[in-house]
Amino acid sequence: MDSESFRECGKTVVDYIASYVDNIRDRPVLSTMKPGYLYELVPPEAPVKGEDWKTVLADVEKIIMPGITHWNSPQFHAYFPTGNSFPSIVGDMLSNGIGCIGFSWITSPACTELEVQVMNWFGKILDLPKEFLNESEGPGGGILQGSASEATLVCLLAAKDRTVKRIKMLNPNMDEGMIKSKLVAYTSNQSNSSVEKAGLLGSMPMRLLNVDNNGQMTGSILAKAIAEDVAKGLIPCYVVATLGTTGTCAFDRLEELGPICNENNIWLHIDAAYAGAAFVLPEYRHHMAGVKYADSFDVNLHKWLLVNFDCSAMWVKNATHLVDAFNVDRIYLKHSYQSEDPQLPDYRHWQIPLGRRFRALKMWFVLRLYGVEGLQAHIKKQVYLAELFGKFVEQDARFEIVMPVTMGLVCFRLKGDDVWTKKLYERLMSSGQIYLVTATVRSQLVIRFVVCSRLTEESDVEFAWGEIQAQTKGIYPAETAADDNVCRIIESPDAEMDKGHVVMSLTQG
Amino acid sequence: MDSESFRECGKTVVDYIASYVDNIRDRPVLSTMKPGYLYELVPPEAPVKGEDWKTVLADVEKIIMPGITHWNSPQFHAYFPTGNSFPSIVGDMLSNGIGCIGFSWITSPACTELEVQVMNWFGKILDLPKEFLNESEGPGGGILQGSASEATLVCLLAAKDRTVKRIKMLNPNMDEGMIKSKLVAYTSNQSNSSVEKAGLLGSMPMRLLNVDNNGQMTGSILAKAIAEDVAKGLIPCYVVATLGTTGTCAFDRLEELGPICNENNIWLHIDAAYAGAAFVLPEYRHHMAGVKYADSFDVNLHKWLLVNFDCSAMWVKNATHLVDAFNVDRIYLKHSYQSEDPQLPDYRHWQIPLGRRFRALKMWFVLRLYGVEGLQAHIKKQVYLAELFGKFVEQDARFEIVMPVTMGLVCFRLKGDDVWTKKLYERLMSSGQIYLVTATVRSQLVIRFVVCSRLTEESDVEFAWGEIQAQTKGIYPAETAADDNVCRIIESPDAEMDKGHVVMSLTQG
Repeated sequence: MDSESFRECGKTVVDYIASYVDNIRDRPVLSTMKPGYLYELVPPEAPVKGEDWKTVLADVEKIIMPGITHWNSPQFHAYFPTGNSFPSIVGDMLSNGIGCIGFSWITSPACTELEVQVMNWFGKILDLPKEFLNESEGPGGGILQGSASEATLVCLLAAKDRTVKRIKMLNPNMDEGMIKSKLVAYTSNQSNSSVEKAGLLGSMPMRLLNVDNNGQMTGSILAKAIAEDVAKGLIPCYVVATLGTTGTCAFDRLEELGPICNENNIWLHIDAAYAGAAFVLPEYRHHMAGVKYADSFDVNLHKWLLVNFDCSAMWVKNATHLVDAFNVDRIYLKHSYQSEDPQLPDYRHWQIPLGRRFRALKMWFVLRLYGVEGLQAHIKKQVYLAELFGKFVEQDARFEIVMPVTMGLVCFRLKGDDVWTKKLYERLMSSGQIYLVTATVRSQLVIRFVVCSRLTEESDVEFAWGEIQAQTKGIYPAETAADDNVCRIIESPDAEMDKGHVVMSLTQG
Repeated sequence: MDSESFRECGKTVVDYIASYVDNIRDRPVLSTMKPGYLYELVPPEAPVKGEDWKTVLADVEKIIMPGITHWNSPQFHAYFPTGNSFPSIVGDMLSNGIGCIGFSWITSPACTELEVQVMNWFGKILDLPKEFLNESEGPGGGILQGSASEATLVCLLAAKDRTVKRIKMLNPNMDEGMIKSKLVAYTSNQSNSSVEKAGLLGSMPMRLLNVDNNGQMTGSILAKAIAEDVAKGLIPCYVVATLGTTGTCAFDRLEELGPICNENNIWLHIDAAYAGAAFVLPEYRHHMAGVKYADSFDVNLHKWLLVNFDCSAMWVKNATHLVDAFNVDRIYLKHSYQSEDPQLPDYRHWQIPLGRRFRALKMWFVLRLYGVEGLQAHIKKQVYLAELFGKFVEQDARFEIVMPVTMGLVCFRLKGDDVWTKKLYERLMSSGQIYLVTATVRSQLVIRFVVCSRLTEESDVEFAWGEIQAQTKGIYPAETAADDNVCRIIESPDAEMDKGHVVMSLTQG
């Protein structure tokens, strides 16, 4: 493809994307294809001769689109949002066009410096403590990781390195392998699966602690676990607190957890992957009270802040710990501007891979084209729409909202036994008009409704609620059944609490 | 930005990218900006109100471009290539437009199935053993990782899990932490820095073994190291062999290493990040003789195969080991089509992060628009251009080529003491007409010339050589100096060999 064909093809694709977005409601949100459908349509061998771009583009509509679950459809209410916006797409086009790999300053100064600057911008938009910012004096700074998963793992590895060094200092004769085998990490059983995975990948047992009745990890829960482990001769090393859990958008109690971590030399990482976006609005910042105790903080712009995947903003209070843990240098990577200045970081030492895309460009486009007020308006609107859906649910006596509506998430269920909610969910999935996923809250099955797409309007929420009501029809064997069941569940959570049991957990497979 | 503005802005950006590529030779390959230049140009705070896209796009030219090191310039001869092509850019635009996160089959069947199919395609293009392919019977399969670094780490973690389970089976009473602390990994001191980093991140000591005089890790070198470690009570677990090392594009001797790994239950990973691309041509496949012994194989399409970063193709012979090591499931991630069928993998269990972009789309565009013959022609041309450069060097008595010209890489130096090569390199960097990096080969400083950009033509190679000749002028204090030094270095490598010492190493910082 020469540049003339690219001009033609690229513009056709721009129009295709614009039309896709304009008409996204016409497509079924959930792909209706059966497993293996694509293997019937795509030949088993690559073509020997190059094909025409028009043929391939036509195949996108014919072969790819039927197999897409449309994450940006206003009928998509599953998981959490995935960021998407025109400014982000345009910024990423430029990133691909330039195609630089900015693993060190010299390999494209703009790539490093723009990332530093947009991380300064964004840190200030969220009102993070100054010491996290590159622009502050001291060793703090921000970086764009590919995902919150990577951020959690990177900080776990830095925590491990820091702790091993500290213990070695105190006990010079202690074997490093021995120290590592005693390290232990903590998170709640409500944290994202990637946190448990980080423990697995980083060879550090990750204890999934029970939460309180609100789904929060509290100081006393953590303190108890730490005391148990210290008594066993283990070394507490790393805590991942979640602001906005995946199941119910609960907020761990940072102000209680923070001092415990600091006193015990435990690295405190905050995973605010989804809900951190809401801190663009001052009225939600009370949820991050206690952030000053943290060693690291992560929020995904690629979730709720309109930047396309991947773009996960991570800050650390002391980047030296990352560089110490990750620095493997080679002569071919050296350059004359290497420095310890956090204004000029060699980001390859802050992350797992060596290579890196120019992610800051799409973030810069989003921050500038929306402006702070644009981001705030986006979050406000999405929270409003979730509250609207919550009101619909509340007005229907067959339903209950299990946790307070928080951010863009509503956890609801049919009153009574799980069997009704399960049946409803199966009907919804088989109808395929809207896409939702389930969770288990206080041992009960719930359906999660999340406002995901930036295109979602009131009418879409009404549509979703209408579909839910339609599929609910005839689920209960008799009208009275629901009422019977209400009595049963009112005692159920208390009974569980008396047993000092997990009152809320996401069942794990 | 509404869809109408996007149509206008997106098309303007398409034109901008096309013009950038058309006129890339007009820009200095290496950014001339001084550290911190961007902080003078980008304000310290994000704008409160959204800005116009035209303003931001103008700033790309004013603020970003001066700070870019143009990896796709035909004057860029540093590191290795970074893939870039119009078909790839178009494919990625669509990926961003669709914006799905295909971490499991249900979240976009096309995302999983197209990835499976293009990995089948590409595996067959490279003539990989059938058992690596998803389409074969058995548990093998391919996945697109973000980078070779991640592939190396992912396989290390799978190897660790496999070995721990095997040892536990043999010694049920042995403590898991104890087993882990005895594991050891091997690679050559010529492997990419990311391999050493994988050892660091995965908490497994990575021994950097000396290589032979050709820069290759041989069977006897590996066997000796294994025997030493077994004698110490350690457990050999993981070997990373490189096909095409970063310093000199050497190929480890797979046919010798493979049987040793298989006999000792050691996971053999092949890092063919750069040179693996050449296996699209049958005449280079002798370099991968012995691939049948490997457990995993990785090659970056985002290096030498025209796909934009990130796109690293990784195959494993038995994906069960990945899933076993990585599987952390949650109810909200479950779906009714979950299976163990390698035709329908849940790719989230094959990688570090949970989320993933639709990378297969850009790869599909590149494979279809170029066709196999197009890819072959690309590699052939780049090898030809490197050989052309090699001929220029050979014809100048002041220079020597230190290792045979291999793939797109020429390692050359001024004869005599390193001081002359160093001086030349400094002049080249300060002139900034072309960009190269250095390496140390057999304790001598060399300059690496790599044909990187797909836009490189004969005239660009002539330009580079002209620049090198121009900067060489007057470097030697007298014409005879070079000849004097020639004698000195002829004995130098042999003397090193007699000592049984490292004859080639990349100095590490």
